[in-house]
Amino acid sequence: MTGAADDRDARAALSFLAEPGDLVLGAMLRQACPAEVLALTRSDHDLLPGLDRLDPGTVSRAVSRWRARLASVPSPGWLAMWAGGPLRLVCPGDPEWPTQLDDLGDARPLLLWLRGAADLRFACLCSVSIVGARAATGYGTHVAGELGADLAGAGWAIVSGGAYGIDAAAHRGALAVGGCTVAILASGLSFGYPRGHQELFDMICQTGLLVSERPPDQAPTRPGFLVRNRMIAALSRGTAVVEAALRSGALNTARQAGELHRPVMAVPGPVTSDQSAGCHELIRDGRATLVTGACDVVELLTPLGEAQDWDPAANRTGRTGRDPAVPPGVIDPVTAGVLRAVPARAGRGPATIATLAGVDLDTAFRCLGLLAAAGYVERCDQGWRRRRECGS
Amino acid sequence: MTGAADDRDARAALSFLAEPGDLVLGAMLRQACPAEVLALTRSDHDLLPGLDRLDPGTVSRAVSRWRARLASVPSPGWLAMWAGGPLRLVCPGDPEWPTQLDDLGDARPLLLWLRGAADLRFACLCSVSIVGARAATGYGTHVAGELGADLAGAGWAIVSGGAYGIDAAAHRGALAVGGCTVAILASGLSFGYPRGHQELFDMICQTGLLVSERPPDQAPTRPGFLVRNRMIAALSRGTAVVEAALRSGALNTARQAGELHRPVMAVPGPVTSDQSAGCHELIRDGRATLVTGACDVVELLTPLGEAQDWDPAANRTGRTGRDPAVPPGVIDPVTAGVLRAVPARAGRGPATIATLAGVDLDTAFRCLGLLAAAGYVERCDQGWRRRRECGS
Repeated sequence: MTGAADDRDARAALSFLAEPGDLVLGAMLRQACPAEVLALTRSDHDLLPGLDRLDPGTVSRAVSRWRARLASVPSPGWLAMWAGGPLRLVCPGDPEWPTQLDDLGDARPLLLWLRGAADLRFACLCSVSIVGARAATGYGTHVAGELGADLAGAGWAIVSGGAYGIDAAAHRGALAVGGCTVAILASGLSFGYPRGHQELFDMICQTGLLVSERPPDQAPTRPGFLVRNRMIAALSRGTAVVEAALRSGALNTARQAGELHRPVMAVPGPVTSDQSAGCHELIRDGRATLVTGACDVVELLTPLGEAQDWDPAANRTGRTGRDPAVPPGVIDPVTAGVLRAVPARAGRGPATIATLAGVDLDTAFRCLGLLAAAGYVERCDQGWRRRRECGS
Repeated sequence: MTGAADDRDARAALSFLAEPGDLVLGAMLRQACPAEVLALTRSDHDLLPGLDRLDPGTVSRAVSRWRARLASVPSPGWLAMWAGGPLRLVCPGDPEWPTQLDDLGDARPLLLWLRGAADLRFACLCSVSIVGARAATGYGTHVAGELGADLAGAGWAIVSGGAYGIDAAAHRGALAVGGCTVAILASGLSFGYPRGHQELFDMICQTGLLVSERPPDQAPTRPGFLVRNRMIAALSRGTAVVEAALRSGALNTARQAGELHRPVMAVPGPVTSDQSAGCHELIRDGRATLVTGACDVVELLTPLGEAQDWDPAANRTGRTGRDPAVPPGVIDPVTAGVLRAVPARAGRGPATIATLAGVDLDTAFRCLGLLAAAGYVERCDQGWRRRRECGS
C-alpha cells in the first residue's frame, strides 16, 4: 500500500509512459495502485501478481511499451517544481476531481493538469460543451459566440477544445460576459497548443480553466486529439456542435457524447454551406437534436420539471436580482432537495438537513458545499441557512 | 339517379354555393348524388330523405347558406362556354382525377378546374410539394429553385401554391429544366391570384398545370388559402418546407401533410434568420425530417428497397440514357410489378400480364396506361412490350 503523495507521484510518472486514454493502464489501475504499476514497469518482471483478469500478453506488451519510455520521466523534483508554478495536479479522489470522468471507465484520465481560477469539479456541475469546425465561417463564429455568451451569462460553464474557429468563438463568448469557460487541450498546458492562442489561454485562466492530461511540456499527437475529445464529451452535461464539415473532428466529440448518453445537439446552417453539412447529418440521422440558441440548449439539459424562465439578455446585463454561479433550475435534483431542507432564517444542523432531504450525511455535506460555493447557503452558529438574496 | 353530364353540371353549380372543403356537403355527397343535393337546395325543403346519418339541424343550416347564394350560379350555358376555352373540368371518377384526393374524406374537392398540358393524375403519381415563405430570402429562393430543378429533372412533378417567394422559386426551378410543375391556386383560374404571376402561370401551363377548386372567376378568400393547402398536401407524396417564419402558412400545409401521413420535410437555414425559424421548429419537434437537397427528398419519398442511384446534374443535363417522366425507382410497387411482367421483345396480352403480376385486369390496364404515358411500355400486335430505350 502506498500513501496519497506516492500515488500522485506514481500517476505523474506514468503519465510520461502511457498515452492518454491507455485502456490497458486503466484496466490495471482497477486492480493495482499506480505505484505498483510504476514499480512493475521499472522492474525486470512482466506481470503483477493479482492481475489475473487481464490477458498476460496484453499486459506484457503494454509494460514493454512504457518501459521504453522510462528515460523520459523527469527527475524526482520536477513535480514539486511544476506544482510551484501556475499549474496544479488533480488526481482521482481529490476534491477538485470531476467525478463524471469516471463514466469513461478504463479510459478515465490518469490525472489532470489544471491552470486557472475556477474549481473544475464545480464548474463542470453545470456545463455544456460547444465544439465545431476550425475553418469556421463568419456565421458559425457568430453563432458560437452568441451561444457561449448566452449560456455563460446564465451560469453555464462553456467547455471546448481551445482550437481555432468555433472553439475559440465559444470560449470568447463566455469571457465576454465574465462567465466561466474550460479549455481542454490536447497538448500539455505549458506547450499550449495552438500556439497562437496564448493570449486567449491567459484570459481563460483569469476566470476559467485550462485542462490537460498530458505532461505540461508535451506537444499534441494526432490520435491525442480524439482522445482529448472524450474528455470534452464527458465533462459536460451535453455537447453542442456548431458547424462541422462531414469529416470534422467535432463529429467525433458528438459521437463520444452520444456513447456517454449525454445529449448531443447541433446548430443548423445554410444547406449551401459545407461547414454545416456535418450538423445536418447529425440531425437528419437522429443523432443530435436541432438547437437554435441558448434557450433550446437549456431546455434540453435541464431535468424535466425544472424548466426555468430566463432571459439571456437579462442574465448578460446582470439584471437578475441574485448572483448565483448556478441558476436554481439547473442544480441537480438531489442538491435541490438539500437546498429545500435548508431554512431561510435561524439555521439547521447537517444531520437534520440530511434526514429532511432523504440523503445520507456525506451527500448532504457535498451538496451544502456546492450550494455554499454557489452562494445559495451559508454556515451560521446553528448549522446552515439560506443566504438572504436567494429568496425561497 | 342522374347521368354523368348531370353530375358534372350539378357539381359545377354546387361549387358556386358551397365553399371549398365544406364538410357538410362532403358528408351529404357520401349518401346522395350532387344533382339531388342541388335539387334540395333549389327546393323549399330542408331535408333529403335518406340522409338519416347526418344531424338535421346541421344539414338545414348548410342548405340555407347555399340557398342564399343560388343567384350566383351562372346560366346553364356557362359550363359549356368555359369548357370551350383553355380550362377543363375534372370530377371524381374522371380518368384525370387524382385518387389520392380521396384521402381528404369529406373535405375532398367537389371538382377541379385545370389548365395546362400535363395530366394531373399522372403528374401527381410521382410528385413532391415545395412550399414556404412569401417573404423569402435570397437563400430560400436559391434553395427552393435548386430543389425544384433537381427533383423535376429527376422526373418528379413539383406541386406548390403559385405564391410569391418560395412557391414561385420552386415552380421556376422545375420550369428551368423543362420539368412538370403544378400550381394549386386559392383563386379561380381565370382570376389567377396573385395577379403578378400571370406570366409564370402561362409558363406553367406549357408543360404543367394550374389547378383550382374554385369557379374560374372567383377571387381567393382568406380561409380559402388554408383550405387550398390541404390539396397541396394531399396531391403529393410528401411536402418540403423551404423557409417559413414561426406563423407562416407553409406550416399549415406541413401540418396537413402530417395529418395525411405524408412525409413532411424541412430545409434548415441560418439560426439567425427568422424565415428559417418555422423549419427549425418543425425539425426540432420531430414533425419534419431535415433535408438538405433533392437526394434527401428522393430517399425519403421512395419506398424502401427501391433506392436509386441518380445524379441531379446528370438528369438536368439529359446525360441519362433513357427519357422517362418517372425514374424506375419511384414508380409505386404495384406498377413496378406490372412493368416486370411486360416482356422486352415480342409482346404479352394484358390478362397474362395481370396474372404474372398478381393483380386484377383493371389494375393491370391502369398501370400499363401509366407506364405507357411514362415511356416505359408500348402497345404492339401481341399486346404490350417494353420500349427499347428502357433496358431491363
